[in-house]
Amino acid sequence: MIDSAVALPQGRRQRNKARVQERLFEAAVELIARHGYDNTSIDEIAARADVARGTFFNYYPRKDDLISEWSARRGTELRRSLVTEAGGLEPGDTVSRFHRCLAALVELNEDRQEVNRSMVTAAVRAGCLGARESATAELFTAILTDGQARGEIGEGLDPDRLGLLLRDAYLGVLTRWAVGAEQDHASLYRELHEVFKVFLIGALPRTAHRDCCPHTA
Amino acid sequence: MIDSAVALPQGRRQRNKARVQERLFEAAVELIARHGYDNTSIDEIAARADVARGTFFNYYPRKDDLISEWSARRGTELRRSLVTEAGGLEPGDTVSRFHRCLAALVELNEDRQEVNRSMVTAAVRAGCLGARESATAELFTAILTDGQARGEIGEGLDPDRLGLLLRDAYLGVLTRWAVGAEQDHASLYRELHEVFKVFLIGALPRTAHRDCCPHTA
Repeated sequence: MIDSAVALPQGRRQRNKARVQERLFEAAVELIARHGYDNTSIDEIAARADVARGTFFNYYPRKDDLISEWSARRGTELRRSLVTEAGGLEPGDTVSRFHRCLAALVELNEDRQEVNRSMVTAAVRAGCLGARESATAELFTAILTDGQARGEIGEGLDPDRLGLLLRDAYLGVLTRWAVGAEQDHASLYRELHEVFKVFLIGALPRTAHRDCCPHTA
Repeated sequence: MIDSAVALPQGRRQRNKARVQERLFEAAVELIARHGYDNTSIDEIAARADVARGTFFNYYPRKDDLISEWSARRGTELRRSLVTEAGGLEPGDTVSRFHRCLAALVELNEDRQEVNRSMVTAAVRAGCLGARESATAELFTAILTDGQARGEIGEGLDPDRLGLLLRDAYLGVLTRWAVGAEQDHASLYRELHEVFKVFLIGALPRTAHRDCCPHTA
């Protein structure tokens, strides 16, 4: 497999393909921001990108592939704030990394809010909550795995499962943010901060911990 | 408002309406269990319940209203295991109540599994993750509010928000369970147990707690 980000310089044919795909994606994003995902047709996207309808399907065989593309680009942007070029995590402890995550997720969603709101709703409907593969969950898991190796995360916990749990909670907050146009700018930060806090320190005060979960192996 | 469970004895007309609705709901459940929500048509449901197509719409104006009905019935069943007839919570502390919740949720989902799997998927697609109104979230919130009043839940936390958070995490587990037919019977219990544990005690070991979330008000 060739990573397209590394395969430069490409031939002209390749570059033209990339340009058409970019035009299609941008056309889709602009229409979706204005009319929502369900109300944006493939015909409209193709017309706005100035390509034939059939060309759209060469790049996105199903309309839902736009969601995957959007999601992959978000994943790349998110990784950029937390992962070094060599592919390792930026230095820091677990708590500070999650604080950086929080800031990156808020920024990612508040930039081009209209399209994000529509795409989050569309992504949940397309079944992303049931998917085990998620760039966000993987990043959470990487932070947790590293934190566990350094004794910063509880030993009895499974980082894969924890990463999915945190992704689910994040997605819940994000979905409510996406449907609630009345919310102010600070609300996404506030809600996510609460999720990260409960995830890391739990709902029980420390004194109660010894009584919890007697069945735990 | 009259609570229909209390309004007995009803007239014959009322009883007949209730019988037709029950027949429609049962017909829907059986077809959905066999073919899935999306592959079950209103015509088929009406035919199986032996009523005219128009009659279906008297009871369920939109097909999605079947999801609301299913969800309301599940809510009632769940409450039955945790709420007294007078409407208060069954005696117990927060941890034992969540253990009872866990058992009830597993039982609720594993009974009539096929229809539950289809309905969970349909409910998520219909947007229940974005909804603030949820019988499950409300029950979690009631347990948390009571626990907080007794000093068993951290003071700085908002029970409404916590209830939604736990519902989101529950729904994530449930959605993966719904799409993964390969999973064994114990897996739903195991996954949910992990969620409740992290929710209550957090991912950080106790010694790390003082370092977490310096921004918290």
